Amino acid sequence: MKIIEGAVTAPRGFLAQGVCAEVKKKDQKDLAIVFSKEKCTCAAVYTTNRVRAACIDINKENLRDGFAQAVVVNSGNANACTGEQGLADARQMGQATAEALNIKAGDVVVASTGVIGVYMPMDRVIKGIQRAAEIISKEGSHNASLAIMTTDLKPKEIAVEIEIQGKPVRIGAMAKGSGMIHPNMATMLAFITTDAAIDNICLEKMIKNSTDRSYNMISVDRDTSTNDMVVIMANGLAGNRCIDDIDSRDYQKLQEAIDFVNISLAKMIARDGEGATRLIEVRVINASDLKTARFIGRSITGSNLTKTAVFGEDANWGRILAAAGYSQADFDPAKVDIYLGQAKMAENGRGLLFDEDKAREELRKDPVSITFDLKSGNCEATAWGCDLSYEYIRINAEYRT
Amino acid sequence: MKIIEGAVTAPRGFLAQGVCAEVKKKDQKDLAIVFSKEKCTCAAVYTTNRVRAACIDINKENLRDGFAQAVVVNSGNANACTGEQGLADARQMGQATAEALNIKAGDVVVASTGVIGVYMPMDRVIKGIQRAAEIISKEGSHNASLAIMTTDLKPKEIAVEIEIQGKPVRIGAMAKGSGMIHPNMATMLAFITTDAAIDNICLEKMIKNSTDRSYNMISVDRDTSTNDMVVIMANGLAGNRCIDDIDSRDYQKLQEAIDFVNISLAKMIARDGEGATRLIEVRVINASDLKTARFIGRSITGSNLTKTAVFGEDANWGRILAAAGYSQADFDPAKVDIYLGQAKMAENGRGLLFDEDKAREELRKDPVSITFDLKSGNCEATAWGCDLSYEYIRINAEYRT
Repeated sequence: MKIIEGAVTAPRGFLAQGVCAEVKKKDQKDLAIVFSKEKCTCAAVYTTNRVRAACIDINKENLRDGFAQAVVVNSGNANACTGEQGLADARQMGQATAEALNIKAGDVVVASTGVIGVYMPMDRVIKGIQRAAEIISKEGSHNASLAIMTTDLKPKEIAVEIEIQGKPVRIGAMAKGSGMIHPNMATMLAFITTDAAIDNICLEKMIKNSTDRSYNMISVDRDTSTNDMVVIMANGLAGNRCIDDIDSRDYQKLQEAIDFVNISLAKMIARDGEGATRLIEVRVINASDLKTARFIGRSITGSNLTKTAVFGEDANWGRILAAAGYSQADFDPAKVDIYLGQAKMAENGRGLLFDEDKAREELRKDPVSITFDLKSGNCEATAWGCDLSYEYIRINAEYRT
Repeated sequence: MKIIEGAVTAPRGFLAQGVCAEVKKKDQKDLAIVFSKEKCTCAAVYTTNRVRAACIDINKENLRDGFAQAVVVNSGNANACTGEQGLADARQMGQATAEALNIKAGDVVVASTGVIGVYMPMDRVIKGIQRAAEIISKEGSHNASLAIMTTDLKPKEIAVEIEIQGKPVRIGAMAKGSGMIHPNMATMLAFITTDAAIDNICLEKMIKNSTDRSYNMISVDRDTSTNDMVVIMANGLAGNRCIDDIDSRDYQKLQEAIDFVNISLAKMIARDGEGATRLIEVRVINASDLKTARFIGRSITGSNLTKTAVFGEDANWGRILAAAGYSQADFDPAKVDIYLGQAKMAENGRGLLFDEDKAREELRKDPVSITFDLKSGNCEATAWGCDLSYEYIRINAEYRT
């Protein structure tokens, strides 16, 4: 696998663009389209929040056939809690995109992110869609990555190339955070494109697996936004024989590449959490089962007290153990070893004497690496988070002003 | 019911004291004893964290018979994650207290709060216990309230008097927060004394009910500390006929008074959350069942985004709805009305036009009052929290330094 230039348009047959439709207050890009010349197999993972944006319901309906050809995304307005009007607006976004690209409305995936409970400025959105479609291009992918940002400081994009059956297969992707490190109300969106040929069943399984290993490890299950969405489109232009077997070597190869792409983006999102100064990487090892490892990892990265301790460069490992304790995972605290970088802070659930200066050095690194050893099995999981700083408060106290 | 002067020594036969045992770094009171001249029926509710302080295990053992006569509490060191040594230390605290007060070690409840994973300075603790026991008095109760504080800005105490069978019955209490609004690692401790006569079964039921309506409504279930504890002691000196029937009017009367005491303390804890500038009170009304109302209330008060929005005086009601959405409660978002004070912000899950200035005024009040109307039944619950400020970060980033 090699990392290549570009993002969602790196795979063959994909075009993209991002423009300013004036959904946001400022003069920033806020509308993106991704388009495939050929129809794609398409699969998506959505928020589990009971309160869902209009676009989620529409996508579920449109993706029932497993195919799509374009994605339209706006930032600045989540179009959530907007009732019937919101549904009509989301549908209109899809229709306008379909018309502008000369495809079927049922083949457009719609996504939104931004403030909740405000109606969309549909006139401006539609004009934006038309403008983006007019100038859509292979070079437009970076603009698209910029247009989906909200409080993100940096655009998040990546592309890789692998070989399947001797043919180069490319995967490109863009994502947006994360305000918070658990995509709470700050929506997490990720769009992955590939020119691999793969059937619907395999693609769905693949994106579900990959989301669990990446974006879901920077989130706590229950802390999902109204708009979270991960979408993958595969147009088959790489010319490989269609991947239709989950147990095949080709499936495995593509899964690994997709995982790499998604984990890379997930880490970028965590690192770019609102006000974050450092990425925190928690490896939970030797767990009795995968669920235990994941629960504990997410509980530690989600703990305000762990996050502030990292920000304050305070090796308060007791907070790490306590966060694991309330993760609802079943484990024996008396068996736990905790490492900060290479330094063991606690053994069998008890504190060791450690060098505070060395610990402080580990806490200054980026990423900060925490290992939580359960010594109870052979499953492991990695979770990512960021520290909690003054800047987080500033951003979120003044979000709408 | 009338509110009276004093705290844990307001009921007949209780004495208390708080001294400086030098467990904390600074010259602050950090060791408290509460003592009843007569043996008490005693019941306790403990943390559900998998990682438990040594004292919890010892109390469970000692309270198996349902009786106690004293409580010893230190602040500054949680004696958690300290293994066998920690257990021995907690046991020694109980024994030293028993000897100093001339009672049985099995009748002493032990509590600790502070840093995790550090061994207790037992020499100083024992000297402190002896000193406190020597000067224990009816007047010492305020010192005791001071001695259990950690990052609390204010001591939290209350006392009330009611009449049962024509006899005045008193209830006194002290509590400590809360660092965080969910008692996470910042331990929540509450000690309630009463001279009511009540049997063990009724007392246990009563404190469990009351904890669910008060302290558990300022916490999210899974976010419990290693040391959280609520203890009630009843010595019977009021001379009422022993309350032994959960369905009796006397039980009901005492439950109401105990609820008032605990809810008052819970609100003080929430209001004094680390860095808090305002109390947030969330009433969830017309829920289909109590569990739904409680889950939603706690999810809203526990949401970092709601908390920062209140701090920033930003009427971002969408964050409130989204927090309810990930509470794991089952409800229909399309039926929800949301009020800020008297002003309706959203109806049937959709935003209404509202006066931003008026909303800002409501958000400047203390408490900030949020009503979440599910229009689906007749159950309700109230949850309390506080806003999330810069000061929270400062306190927790520099906790050990």
